Amino acid sequence: MDITLETIAARLEGLEETIISKLVDRAQFSRDASAYEPGKSGFENEPVSSLFEVRLRHTEEMDSRFGRFLVPEERPFCAGLPGPQRAVHPENNFLKVKNIAGITLASEIRESYRALVGALCPSGDDGQYGSAVEHDIFALQAIARRIHFGALYVAEIKFRQEPAEYTSLVHGGNTNALMAKLTRKSVEDAIFDRVREKVAYLQGRINPLVRFRIDPEVVLQYYRDTVIPLTKKGEIMYLIKRANIT
Amino acid sequence: MDITLETIAARLEGLEETIISKLVDRAQFSRDASAYEPGKSGFENEPVSSLFEVRLRHTEEMDSRFGRFLVPEERPFCAGLPGPQRAVHPENNFLKVKNIAGITLASEIRESYRALVGALCPSGDDGQYGSAVEHDIFALQAIARRIHFGALYVAEIKFRQEPAEYTSLVHGGNTNALMAKLTRKSVEDAIFDRVREKVAYLQGRINPLVRFRIDPEVVLQYYRDTVIPLTKKGEIMYLIKRANIT
Repeated sequence: MDITLETIAARLEGLEETIISKLVDRAQFSRDASAYEPGKSGFENEPVSSLFEVRLRHTEEMDSRFGRFLVPEERPFCAGLPGPQRAVHPENNFLKVKNIAGITLASEIRESYRALVGALCPSGDDGQYGSAVEHDIFALQAIARRIHFGALYVAEIKFRQEPAEYTSLVHGGNTNALMAKLTRKSVEDAIFDRVREKVAYLQGRINPLVRFRIDPEVVLQYYRDTVIPLTKKGEIMYLIKRANIT
Repeated sequence: MDITLETIAARLEGLEETIISKLVDRAQFSRDASAYEPGKSGFENEPVSSLFEVRLRHTEEMDSRFGRFLVPEERPFCAGLPGPQRAVHPENNFLKVKNIAGITLASEIRESYRALVGALCPSGDDGQYGSAVEHDIFALQAIARRIHFGALYVAEIKFRQEPAEYTSLVHGGNTNALMAKLTRKSVEDAIFDRVREKVAYLQGRINPLVRFRIDPEVVLQYYRDTVIPLTKKGEIMYLIKRANIT
């Protein structure tokens, strides 16, 4: 398939649906503050970490063995993961920056996610910490995939459209001008409207006796304050490397 | 919360939504027959297993350490898993049969699932085996949770409503009569209608450029031919043990 700004936007729209469904899944459990408390994982050999941290590391160690992090938009949250035990054949050769190790928003995503759980989930403690953190990891992975995919692919395609312009902005060192050039307010507003509408729609047949509903405004705000800004921050990281390819 | 036939039905309805969303996720990848071929996992230390089998075992080993299989409705597909490394406090004491180890439909579910993938997913091979099997495990876990939850909880509540009747049917050894007593055709038909409708609804805003749509009829048939019959088979397994509690 040809990679164009349209196919990239379509992929981002698909990832948006995944994020929403993972957040709805997480919100079926309470905030469960204990699951994030250091030293309370219950794992004897993990005296310092929280249950959330242990689950994140175990999941990423497994995923890394299966080759997840060979895919450019899959950026890990943990350091020191084991290497892949199988080969993965990336589908295309689209990204011209090959060493993307430094392009990661993982720590910002992780930080922002804690506040999101507080805003989305029912308050209190239901004791289902294992399920809560399992769904945390799925939601985090979906959010990170969306942000990093956008950062890498949108930046590459925009650079190709105007290479001289972006090279000059990067070399001029004017990050504000670069950010301004990457920002299309009407596109962003359309994404926010679509996200709010989709959160409401996907929960339209929820039986409130069965499932807790999340607030569309909270997801919209997370997109506005975190997903889109971090994507653009990642685009700039990519463009700086891209403009320096000789 | 009081456990009644209504709250159990509500939980089953919620799990139904989870199954549908996991199946839609899986169907974003092709059938990918290679992922199920023995000896093609790519893992050097796994010369015999398929990638699917390796992923299933690694996931269940991790989940077992986190205590998943201490929850009655979470029945594993693999044998010989490591024990839990943390304590999980089951929420209630509702099920009167304590040793449910023998009540499992795992092998039937796993068998039926392979045909379901063939019917649901786009034909062919997209090379994304890692993602395909990752989503297989999520879908399998959701299906198994629904079937085993139904088997255990529905059987327990029905037994409580008519203990003498069920005890006599079990001791009479008449499985057909037991199956007839557990079957309420109007309830099953209502579930089938709801499943078909929900599969269509949940995909109502899917952008076909972005996401592949699954066929509501295929999911309905899977419910009719597999989910409901296996749930009732599990109910009978439970009732046989339940009627022999002295």
